Amino acid sequence: MSYAAFKSEVAKVNDILCAVNLLTWDSRVMMPPGGVDARGKQIATLIGLARDIATGDGLQRAIEEARAELSGVAPGDIRLLAVEQAADAIGTLSRIPASLVGAAAELKTVSQAAWSKARAANDFAAFAPMLERTMDMQREIASAIGYDDHPYDALVATYEPGMTWNRLRGLYGELREALLPLLAEVKEANVRAEILDRAYPVDRQRAFSSLISSRFGYDFNRGRLDDTVHPFEISFTRSDVRITGRFRETWLPGGLFAVWHEAGHGMYEQGIPEEFSRSVFATDFVNLYAVGGASFGTHESQSRLWENRIGRSRRFWELNFADLRKTFPDQLSDVSAEDFWRAVNAARPGFIRVEADELTYDFHIMLRSEIEAGLMTGEIRVADLPSIWRERIKVYLGLDVPSDTLGVLQDVHWSAGMVGSFPTYTIGNIMSSQFFAAARKETAVELGLEAGDYLPLKTWLNDNVHQFGRSKSPSQLLMDATGSDLSTAAYIADLAHKVEELTE
Amino acid sequence: MSYAAFKSEVAKVNDILCAVNLLTWDSRVMMPPGGVDARGKQIATLIGLARDIATGDGLQRAIEEARAELSGVAPGDIRLLAVEQAADAIGTLSRIPASLVGAAAELKTVSQAAWSKARAANDFAAFAPMLERTMDMQREIASAIGYDDHPYDALVATYEPGMTWNRLRGLYGELREALLPLLAEVKEANVRAEILDRAYPVDRQRAFSSLISSRFGYDFNRGRLDDTVHPFEISFTRSDVRITGRFRETWLPGGLFAVWHEAGHGMYEQGIPEEFSRSVFATDFVNLYAVGGASFGTHESQSRLWENRIGRSRRFWELNFADLRKTFPDQLSDVSAEDFWRAVNAARPGFIRVEADELTYDFHIMLRSEIEAGLMTGEIRVADLPSIWRERIKVYLGLDVPSDTLGVLQDVHWSAGMVGSFPTYTIGNIMSSQFFAAARKETAVELGLEAGDYLPLKTWLNDNVHQFGRSKSPSQLLMDATGSDLSTAAYIADLAHKVEELTE
Repeated sequence: MSYAAFKSEVAKVNDILCAVNLLTWDSRVMMPPGGVDARGKQIATLIGLARDIATGDGLQRAIEEARAELSGVAPGDIRLLAVEQAADAIGTLSRIPASLVGAAAELKTVSQAAWSKARAANDFAAFAPMLERTMDMQREIASAIGYDDHPYDALVATYEPGMTWNRLRGLYGELREALLPLLAEVKEANVRAEILDRAYPVDRQRAFSSLISSRFGYDFNRGRLDDTVHPFEISFTRSDVRITGRFRETWLPGGLFAVWHEAGHGMYEQGIPEEFSRSVFATDFVNLYAVGGASFGTHESQSRLWENRIGRSRRFWELNFADLRKTFPDQLSDVSAEDFWRAVNAARPGFIRVEADELTYDFHIMLRSEIEAGLMTGEIRVADLPSIWRERIKVYLGLDVPSDTLGVLQDVHWSAGMVGSFPTYTIGNIMSSQFFAAARKETAVELGLEAGDYLPLKTWLNDNVHQFGRSKSPSQLLMDATGSDLSTAAYIADLAHKVEELTE
Repeated sequence: MSYAAFKSEVAKVNDILCAVNLLTWDSRVMMPPGGVDARGKQIATLIGLARDIATGDGLQRAIEEARAELSGVAPGDIRLLAVEQAADAIGTLSRIPASLVGAAAELKTVSQAAWSKARAANDFAAFAPMLERTMDMQREIASAIGYDDHPYDALVATYEPGMTWNRLRGLYGELREALLPLLAEVKEANVRAEILDRAYPVDRQRAFSSLISSRFGYDFNRGRLDDTVHPFEISFTRSDVRITGRFRETWLPGGLFAVWHEAGHGMYEQGIPEEFSRSVFATDFVNLYAVGGASFGTHESQSRLWENRIGRSRRFWELNFADLRKTFPDQLSDVSAEDFWRAVNAARPGFIRVEADELTYDFHIMLRSEIEAGLMTGEIRVADLPSIWRERIKVYLGLDVPSDTLGVLQDVHWSAGMVGSFPTYTIGNIMSSQFFAAARKETAVELGLEAGDYLPLKTWLNDNVHQFGRSKSPSQLLMDATGSDLSTAAYIADLAHKVEELTE
């Protein structure tokens, strides 16, 4: 019964972390303003309990007894995998001292407040001391976790198991080389961008983006869509996976594509098999987070696939623009499917990462990764960030950054103590094209896309990605599903093809 | 530091139970249908953790060390009170064996499903076996808790500390004697009841009931109003206290009064002092429920006070009917404040407790209490419930029950394993009049009510009821606030006065 005891302890941790996810969802979507402080304490208590159980003697004993009980089974047995995967993740978790976790949580509270003020006041110097402390602490965490080559590796791996700074540099180099010329080329494309900022009533935006999400395969019987300032997806097991959007009346793509992005994340979680619910394969023990996706990058591959590979494809709009025009007959009376597709693919270098198009997005990520890696070794100092930021944005995107608010202060991540997560956005972009290319090798998928039937694609993703939950590493998942490990070729090919279509 | 350790363990339990309250709120208000099973497991896990901490060695040791640490303080010291109150409640909780708790939880799941089917099919016999098992289990729980006189006392006291069946019988006798003649008298009153079932658009009902709730003093900055099938109030500390309503277009009072009822509950929780947040004075350790009110009856006194003593008073409608008519100008063009006040006070004996008016409501409670008490001693058998029900409804309300669906099967409570909670509704009615009478002795309160300024009344309730949280017993709270223990006089006087007004 030791494996049973192991499963039941893990289920408890998962239940607690699902409750934390609900407390988080509620705090962003429903909670009245007065509730902030009490909610913070409730989340801290539950995370603390999850940590206590995860790193406690009870689970450790259950792991050891389960190992003994399973000593005779075949090496690939899923139970053995579950035990070893839990032991490994808990090992990482346990290496980060509780005192450091507590100090990081305390710092986060004051740091986020300081960042928020500094960003509003365009005053990097006011935030710099907090950022220094954050980076010191992240270096300590990297040391505690341990690494072979580069301190950044330890942090990146908590979000993307197996990834290293060395590999990232290689990928970034390939992307830079391929994308800079494409970017130069696409600027010539003929685009009626102004059609997107007409007045599109928000309730109809919500209805249309929901309709398409359902067509993609997002299951509203096990989900819901709400409005928030920052769109996100979050799950409380596969049976309740919620997404949020943000709709602005005069910027149509903002609402639509964010919903399809989150629906992509959502379908991943909804596709985790029932038997993985409340198991180690739906629990991130390192980040103490209830999630079924294999890694942050893998998760992002699913959102990007639906948002960009499908939602920004020419064929998608040939098939679905009629419905959009039915939704907004006055606004779109003088617009064709082709016009609309071109407009939502307009590439314009800009200062803000979250508003970046496909061709410029990864440059924002490279810049941040390079800074993070440099901060971790000490090669880059916090005080120099504003000037480094300006230099690189000039090199990558040809822009002069007018203020730190539109530069180094724009993202919440560092103030929240998140270092090493940015690369997963680009990893997700790359993986999305690999999965997409592999899926299209199936005739049913290709015929479906041609006809506007997205079920075959969703089913392929269910079968080749979702159903494995966290039971495979991102590398293994990619190898098994596509035949190769992480590689920029398919992504670059997709973007080159897009540019070709746009400039023809 | 032992008292500090005690406080911190209690805070942990409160945080967990607040999370359970949010999981519950969400399941009734927001959760997609697919989420039911997983949510049940999450709630069970968190309740189990709360129970483990509450009955665990750590808290027990902290209690003993806190006692030692506080041995020198004055007998009335709030810290001493906190420790002894926790010890006492945890004693009760610990006397109920975990096996019994588990069996009751399991039974609840199947029993509620059986009840739901049986009610729909008007088939009491199909539900009877579950009800027998529930009552057996409740008898076991009563034995485990212990009692001096009557097994029902043990169960009632879990909802209403200090209350006994003997005292309840006395109160019920007084009410019967006073209310039956009033009921006969009021039937003569002249009422245009049909004005209430015109078409009142739901969004405007919601807006008006919110407006009045704000006037009463419910703080939307620390709360929110949503729609549900069964209205309720629930809190996650004083800083986030939510209410729900149910609005039907063709039954105006249903929506309005339910919201004011729940707002009354809500103001109680919002009025718990900050320093009691996450303490034993905001935690029900017997029911493992995060709540700041002193007892179920005390809580009901606050909801009934705002719903009935204020919301159904003549003066209230003289002052606020103009705003209602502004909200529904067409529907109410031929209606006066006096007409409206009479209509919302119409007394008509009916089968359904939750639809009962002030003059008949308590008879529904007496009937249920008598049955519960009889079931606990074995004087009443489950098989006889339908016939007993019919007999007593005939005696109390003069009605012939046409079906068990409209009779013994109407309430969810027994299928949920709740025995002993019904009396708290009548206790709440009685207390509401006692508090109201005491409050009106203050000139500011009386002048406020006369002028439509409800702040003085709310402040009186804050000062005399809310601010004590669970630190006083219901009896003590009543004695201190009104000068007497539970007594039907003020309630009977209020109802007699109402009948007098209605029949003049």
